[in-house]
Amino acid sequence: MQFPSKLIADAVASFTKLPGIGEKTALRLVLHLLKQPTESVSNFSTAIERMRSEIKFCSQCHNVSDESICNICTDTRRDQTKICVVENIRDVIALENTGVYNGLYHVLGGIISPVDGIGPDQLNIATLINRLENKECKEIIMALNPTMEGDTTIFYITKLTKDKNIIITSISRGIAFGGELEYTDDLTLARSFSGRLPFENYLSN
Amino acid sequence: MQFPSKLIADAVASFTKLPGIGEKTALRLVLHLLKQPTESVSNFSTAIERMRSEIKFCSQCHNVSDESICNICTDTRRDQTKICVVENIRDVIALENTGVYNGLYHVLGGIISPVDGIGPDQLNIATLINRLENKECKEIIMALNPTMEGDTTIFYITKLTKDKNIIITSISRGIAFGGELEYTDDLTLARSFSGRLPFENYLSN
Repeated sequence: MQFPSKLIADAVASFTKLPGIGEKTALRLVLHLLKQPTESVSNFSTAIERMRSEIKFCSQCHNVSDESICNICTDTRRDQTKICVVENIRDVIALENTGVYNGLYHVLGGIISPVDGIGPDQLNIATLINRLENKECKEIIMALNPTMEGDTTIFYITKLTKDKNIIITSISRGIAFGGELEYTDDLTLARSFSGRLPFENYLSN
Repeated sequence: MQFPSKLIADAVASFTKLPGIGEKTALRLVLHLLKQPTESVSNFSTAIERMRSEIKFCSQCHNVSDESICNICTDTRRDQTKICVVENIRDVIALENTGVYNGLYHVLGGIISPVDGIGPDQLNIATLINRLENKECKEIIMALNPTMEGDTTIFYITKLTKDKNIIITSISRGIAFGGELEYTDDLTLARSFSGRLPFENYLSN
């Protein structure tokens, strides 16, 4: 696509680098910004630049944070005996928004995936094991995607913690609420069957 | 949605102000940017800020431009006897990308729409009439959306130019290439029938 101005072309090119944004959408966004007051566009660009340059990662759980320890880790009202292990920051946000969990988190920064060349050393697993030294943690809740890679990661962490008197649990797998048994794949259905629980367990939250 | 960091929350809020971007998409974009090098995020925000603060509008045709006169208006190889009137900058870009037109443009900045309170005085119509003074222009091609408002605008400009010996044409309306006659609305079909042309006219480009 040809643009009447290099400034427009540069801004469009910047937007198209974002995931899911093609040239037409980028142009729409740029022309929208062009109609906004200079100040609000300046605020937009400042918010993005500051976010990237000033963001910190919590030295304990690796979640994003404005401080060197995040406000979940410093919150003493939260249950210090539970650590929920997730793949990435997005999963922390998703779980926090359910409001169902009141413990701590640990962000792995990925999952073990030999196909992609990701081994345990590239993930925040060593720091997780270190966190268990203070003996406060009684349960590790694995909240990973139910895939081969997720299961491998769970097995690996389970092995590392087996002499530590900690329960490893996993968020339940099964048929999503509103889903249909008939159209559920065999593996999910089989696991859902063998993982059955007294019905009241599903109603407690 | 709750975010673990105010910096993230601010960046997400900035993105959600853009058209068609909800909170989930905004978060996805922000977390994508978080994974990029600081420098490339800085380039992104600079491109957007510069685009808004340094952009100029061509004093002749009102198209966006890096200079005070745009590179379409200054290009002497373009046909100076034709002015194509469009609603907005996006239409200039769309037409330029077809490669079919080699004349000048005039961006109205909207169309006459009494319902929205937009009258001729809010549009760049006076400057269009001024451009006709030098007598170079022989044809005004109206490339407006085929709506009531578009037609009103065409009538209004036609009236203002009727003593100027200029042909006013409109881009053709009809059934889009690949469309089906059976599913075309009555008005389009009727206009398409009365606006019929020798077939070779549609093949010339």
